[in-house]
Amino acid sequence: MTADPVLNAIRDRRSIRKYTGDPVSDDAVRAILEAGRWAPSGMNNQPFRFLVLRKSDPRFEALAGLTKYTHIVRGCDAMIALFLDKKATYHEQKDHQSAGGCVQSMMLAAHAMGLGTVWLGQMMNNAPQVLEALKLAGDDYEFITVLTVGHPAEPGTANRKPLEEYMLEAF
Amino acid sequence: MTADPVLNAIRDRRSIRKYTGDPVSDDAVRAILEAGRWAPSGMNNQPFRFLVLRKSDPRFEALAGLTKYTHIVRGCDAMIALFLDKKATYHEQKDHQSAGGCVQSMMLAAHAMGLGTVWLGQMMNNAPQVLEALKLAGDDYEFITVLTVGHPAEPGTANRKPLEEYMLEAF
Repeated sequence: MTADPVLNAIRDRRSIRKYTGDPVSDDAVRAILEAGRWAPSGMNNQPFRFLVLRKSDPRFEALAGLTKYTHIVRGCDAMIALFLDKKATYHEQKDHQSAGGCVQSMMLAAHAMGLGTVWLGQMMNNAPQVLEALKLAGDDYEFITVLTVGHPAEPGTANRKPLEEYMLEAF
Repeated sequence: MTADPVLNAIRDRRSIRKYTGDPVSDDAVRAILEAGRWAPSGMNNQPFRFLVLRKSDPRFEALAGLTKYTHIVRGCDAMIALFLDKKATYHEQKDHQSAGGCVQSMMLAAHAMGLGTVWLGQMMNNAPQVLEALKLAGDDYEFITVLTVGHPAEPGTANRKPLEEYMLEAF
């Protein structure tokens, strides 16, 4: 096994905010969810819960209105909403770290399949309204994010500081 | 590009708690850090800070004593400690989510290179002591975790619930 496909996917994945409108197959969405399923979690508590919303779902447009990135959501073909099951969570920070690993796994899987995603962290600011629109009880579930999924209509851009600026000591 | 190497890495990566003791090259550690560098972060705030500790470093043994998994740490060849730079953070939960994506990227990169890691989330319980051992100010940095890195001496095991149990609605 060569490491390159994985290292390249990690390096080359971009947030994709414009989509062609071409449909994303159920199989592709399922492969993304499978990637999320395999994400590690503290104590292996597996607190992740998923909800897939297709364009035809009336709740799709409701959620599109619960972010300032409405135009991005409207352009995508499927939304994957991620929640934590409060019956499974055990440590706020660690559970949120696990959720981030889950999102990253799903985004990398989508990228590997030629699909684009964006992590709509901003929507978390409207978590109570999202839960209400989905008729989910806040006592049961914590809303993490929506991942938009579609075929990229743009390459995406990214910038990162050089590695030295991440290092607390030279390496 | 076929998606399989990435999807397989996500599915097949395991926590590796036993290492052969063979050295891990600087280049391999650097490739892992590079993977972490490319992790997404909210508002692209890039709050991640890394510190690499080799076995020869006196602080290696100090950190090994700050977890109940001392035996795992002692067996690895390198530790990558992950912190958040408090000058860069902006939202506790989102920053921790980003940190989790960073850890996952590093673990996937290591796995792709045939290396094993384990995410020592438990060490976060001793964050003040870790910061003290590393002479880092808690006002400046938040300790997230240590990732142990080594050549796997065991295949690792994992179990996950079936996807249906992650789904809030059938898909």
